Amino acid sequence: MRAIHNSPTLTLIGAGPGDPDLITLKGVKALNRAKVILYDALVHTDLLNHASEDCIKVYVGKRSGLHSYKQKEINDLIVKYSYLKGSVVRLKGGDPMVFGRAEEEIEHASKFGIICQIIPGISSSTSVPGQYGIHLTSRGVNESFWVVTGTTVNGEISPDFYLAAQSSATVVVLMGRKKIGLITEYYKEIGKGNLSIAVIQNGTMKTEKSATGTINNIESRVIAQNIGTPAIIIIGDAVKKISAEKSIKNQYAKFN
Amino acid sequence: MRAIHNSPTLTLIGAGPGDPDLITLKGVKALNRAKVILYDALVHTDLLNHASEDCIKVYVGKRSGLHSYKQKEINDLIVKYSYLKGSVVRLKGGDPMVFGRAEEEIEHASKFGIICQIIPGISSSTSVPGQYGIHLTSRGVNESFWVVTGTTVNGEISPDFYLAAQSSATVVVLMGRKKIGLITEYYKEIGKGNLSIAVIQNGTMKTEKSATGTINNIESRVIAQNIGTPAIIIIGDAVKKISAEKSIKNQYAKFN
Repeated sequence: MRAIHNSPTLTLIGAGPGDPDLITLKGVKALNRAKVILYDALVHTDLLNHASEDCIKVYVGKRSGLHSYKQKEINDLIVKYSYLKGSVVRLKGGDPMVFGRAEEEIEHASKFGIICQIIPGISSSTSVPGQYGIHLTSRGVNESFWVVTGTTVNGEISPDFYLAAQSSATVVVLMGRKKIGLITEYYKEIGKGNLSIAVIQNGTMKTEKSATGTINNIESRVIAQNIGTPAIIIIGDAVKKISAEKSIKNQYAKFN
Repeated sequence: MRAIHNSPTLTLIGAGPGDPDLITLKGVKALNRAKVILYDALVHTDLLNHASEDCIKVYVGKRSGLHSYKQKEINDLIVKYSYLKGSVVRLKGGDPMVFGRAEEEIEHASKFGIICQIIPGISSSTSVPGQYGIHLTSRGVNESFWVVTGTTVNGEISPDFYLAAQSSATVVVLMGRKKIGLITEYYKEIGKGNLSIAVIQNGTMKTEKSATGTINNIESRVIAQNIGTPAIIIIGDAVKKISAEKSIKNQYAKFN
């Protein structure tokens, strides 16, 4: 491969939680200028309309069960296109820095002398709860929240989860839909069966679905509501406090 | 006060971490339509240019040491203007749902029948570390991050901090600049004096300043660098791993 561009660049952009208007203005401007966009499965395709017609747009999404693109292949595409075209945009769902594997892509690109920048996105961890009237923290209830991925390298839940569950922090589990049994089991073991929990699929999208309840009853409700992936799980006393104000969720509906 | 609008609304918008282009497209559209904007001290004033000339723009920032507007006064302004003009935009730094006191404003407005919506913003907790090449999580190092405010109602650090410090989670402390002594003291007590830590003031802004080091040496570096508020503190093994790649921070500079 011949380097026809001297200073190739890689721009990682967070597309936000789902609603295409929840990308940043900085992200939109970068898409306007983009020569090549490599985009993931969780990215709303309306966002591609911010790019010019002659921009090369490549879907590199990993479909569940069918890994259409391996991380290595994406890394290779980044290097190839950045040298061929001078710059590549990597458009990822949520925030690339929140379990978005930005690290691996930056490390790989850097080895090839590609200059990297990150345009952060709205993470579902902080944005989706609010759309449901759920606050991550509540004065007098708690002062922190803890974000953990349900999908770790070895397939186990993170050891940190067991410390988090003991705290008053609101625990937010991303990509943890399949771990709901394991999660609720542990909370029951430590005597927190009555703690409030919400599970939200496709938050901020028209296709959103949710189930709320307690640790003791959430699993059956998730099944009854047919909640699939991608989903976010929110657990804690702050969830209870606000989900009692049912009017808030209904009020949002009038805007959207 | 006479209700001249039947369905008054309140829209809380997150302005993002500092860079005015890090507001969402949805936020920009809401500012375009705004009739009244109540904005905070940490909001970049360039954002007001998205509003029309006849939009009423009221600064309600709380200056450190000089509380120009009390929360109660802000609540009263929300009610007054939303009935007078039909709608109010509340523009807040970061994300209104991440220690932004959104809860209090929504609860107050709801009591007066004002319909509320939230347009999330980029929280400094997730966005500022990445601009410094610091990842919150790193495959093989950890799988979670924990966000806490250093400014609690009673002035103490959250009890959750002591659980988080024992975990492998990256700990992010917002509004904790004045607690740096207390924070490092506890890490030393549990034998984590060599853990990596970064303190960043005005992240994503041209005025940004930072200090990095270990628990053992950070306090003197923060003083030497004259780091003030608002600042974000990031602690954990993931900080070390990436801050070693000094090239990344330098590369970012070429973009910005």
